[in-house]
Amino acid sequence: MIMILDIINKKANKYELTKEELETIFMGYLNNEVKDYQMSAFLMAICINDMSDSEVFALTDIFIKSGDVLDLSFIDGIKVDKHSTGGVGDKTTLIIAPLVASCNVPVIKMSGRGLGYTGGTIDKLESIEGFRVVLTEDEIKNQARDIGLVITSQTKDLAPLDKKVYALRDVTATTNSIPLIASSIMSKKIAGGADKIVIDIKVGCGALLKTMEEAKRLESLLIKIGSYYQKEVRTIISNMDRPLGHNIGNKLEVLEAFEVLKGNVKGELLNLSLDLASKMVSMGKEISEREARDEVVENLNNGKALNKFLEFVRYQHGDIDNLKTDAKVYNIKANKSGALKDINALAIAKLSESLGAGRKNKDDTIDYNAGVVIKKEIGDEIKEGDVLASLYTNIDNPNFNLEGIFEIS
Amino acid sequence: MIMILDIINKKANKYELTKEELETIFMGYLNNEVKDYQMSAFLMAICINDMSDSEVFALTDIFIKSGDVLDLSFIDGIKVDKHSTGGVGDKTTLIIAPLVASCNVPVIKMSGRGLGYTGGTIDKLESIEGFRVVLTEDEIKNQARDIGLVITSQTKDLAPLDKKVYALRDVTATTNSIPLIASSIMSKKIAGGADKIVIDIKVGCGALLKTMEEAKRLESLLIKIGSYYQKEVRTIISNMDRPLGHNIGNKLEVLEAFEVLKGNVKGELLNLSLDLASKMVSMGKEISEREARDEVVENLNNGKALNKFLEFVRYQHGDIDNLKTDAKVYNIKANKSGALKDINALAIAKLSESLGAGRKNKDDTIDYNAGVVIKKEIGDEIKEGDVLASLYTNIDNPNFNLEGIFEIS
Repeated sequence: MIMILDIINKKANKYELTKEELETIFMGYLNNEVKDYQMSAFLMAICINDMSDSEVFALTDIFIKSGDVLDLSFIDGIKVDKHSTGGVGDKTTLIIAPLVASCNVPVIKMSGRGLGYTGGTIDKLESIEGFRVVLTEDEIKNQARDIGLVITSQTKDLAPLDKKVYALRDVTATTNSIPLIASSIMSKKIAGGADKIVIDIKVGCGALLKTMEEAKRLESLLIKIGSYYQKEVRTIISNMDRPLGHNIGNKLEVLEAFEVLKGNVKGELLNLSLDLASKMVSMGKEISEREARDEVVENLNNGKALNKFLEFVRYQHGDIDNLKTDAKVYNIKANKSGALKDINALAIAKLSESLGAGRKNKDDTIDYNAGVVIKKEIGDEIKEGDVLASLYTNIDNPNFNLEGIFEIS
Repeated sequence: MIMILDIINKKANKYELTKEELETIFMGYLNNEVKDYQMSAFLMAICINDMSDSEVFALTDIFIKSGDVLDLSFIDGIKVDKHSTGGVGDKTTLIIAPLVASCNVPVIKMSGRGLGYTGGTIDKLESIEGFRVVLTEDEIKNQARDIGLVITSQTKDLAPLDKKVYALRDVTATTNSIPLIASSIMSKKIAGGADKIVIDIKVGCGALLKTMEEAKRLESLLIKIGSYYQKEVRTIISNMDRPLGHNIGNKLEVLEAFEVLKGNVKGELLNLSLDLASKMVSMGKEISEREARDEVVENLNNGKALNKFLEFVRYQHGDIDNLKTDAKVYNIKANKSGALKDINALAIAKLSESLGAGRKNKDDTIDYNAGVVIKKEIGDEIKEGDVLASLYTNIDNPNFNLEGIFEIS
């Protein structure tokens, strides 16, 4: 125990740790030799006193080696993965994956479930009746060869140490650490078998990172870790003061993604999806982002991306033809007239969670049908009595907290 | 839980906490609503980001109110207590208590057991055959009235929250925080019923505080907390690079204290004891420290202090007439000649613990007879083969680690 305390003390006193010291304390934690209360004190020391680049590389490595590393060589081509640091209404994966696959860049993605205010792609897909999120390795290989697009929950034990540390950070106010965020993201992506990685860094009130300064620091660190592993990383920093798109909630987000692929939605959600997809195609085909973007836009317009989406959902047994929400709808009306100045992402996320769409704890069940549909755009002239949003829930006599969501000047 | 995380976050981000926030998290911890891993993250944030004076006052108050507060009004006069921040070979309480009581200043002291490298007065007294450390309230009152001197283990539940927090700090590398140390000390002394308090702040390699700067900060904070409670606090900052006196180990320390009271020991241990006792008598009688010192020295020289000690030990059923150590003795000899430049307190403490004199964990049993007697003084000319120290232990085939203890130039 003395050694563990010495290591914690060293970080508390702002000294740099060696890889051996990081291994001792983190692997000790995985093996239950280091206790939760020791790890949380150590994580707090990291949050406040930061980590050097070499400490971050070492930690990423320890996370990766704590579990399995996927080998995606069964399918040809450069495997490009995409990660988002998490935002409200972020359903870009559902749009990007078929867009990129329709350009013949394979997408084999392991996704997770949502926790707190952040949704998870697996929950969204599971809101589609019949959709299978748990696939065997053979099923993944066959589907990848047949249609070039698979999204599944984790088959193997990828970075289990990161998972254990992440769960502890969540309950000890130690989430706000750029080095811990960076090593967590990169270890999961590298263990997931990606050759190249696009990362959408969210910044704003609805995101983990609140300032551009933090976002820039994370961006630089992600790229550095990538180059340490000789894996190209490209990033986008995108705003998360407001929700992304109009729909928040699992099935509602699938419906909105579907509409984007049908060409019925413009605006920020489409633009961000095109930006991310273009980067992925550019990296996967080793062409310029401009060339890639032409191909992506073409496949959106000619329906190839939509067809890939339908093919993908049907392949995983989802009933895409009968997708509709099953919940009571409550319309929220404006109580004054004026211009819609702001929609607060964090407040929307809390509202959506209160309707049953999110998990407070890992084992909570969620209502796939619950959520929020925003009916107005920033800048719209609002008249008193106009419907600002529709709320979907199966909770009896729900109590809505609408405070701070819509700012009307 | 969200509120708890907000409070932890606030401290992690260097904001000052309100008394209500401190109460929420600390009382939540006492009630097991706040988990060990949350409290340890919070304590680490305090260690690194410090506390304001008003936070320290609030925390001290929360600690005090978490349990009982003793009422010592059953005996007349100003009750002066003494505390030491803990050192190696520190047996001053055994010397001071009879010295002060012999000057008609009552001493009613609740003491604790040792943990780690720091001894506890209760363990030392218990090393005397027959000595009763657990007294009833009536016994304490009668003894205080009869002889004006009682040393007992805690009768009531004094500052139980401090006890719980202290145990967690011990295993999470969060001991080095001046505000946490100050509120811990002061809450225990105030709950113990003291009117005035003398504090011996140890600084050096064998103490918790390593630098004079830390000692000065602690001194100023202890005095401030005292004045917040209108309780006079006087301090001494004393060196703990070297052990105090020659004997380390429970019964060995009682023997040395006995020799000091008999007038057979000079040097640092005697001087510090006289300084501390003079402050206590000065505060208890409201006279100058010079006048108090005259009285203290007189009572040492005329045997009154020694008689008070004998009276006290016999009153608590201790067999002081047959005090001798029961252990095998191993002599450590110098392996070269030269001047004795230094004796390392921390190394001596580790050695003494390894001989069986100290507890690693709270529930360990200890050997009262084990310990170290140092045979030479700093500055002595040593010849190769001279005995530097005698080691007392009942461990079979002991393995001594003598590295770094004696520095001979």
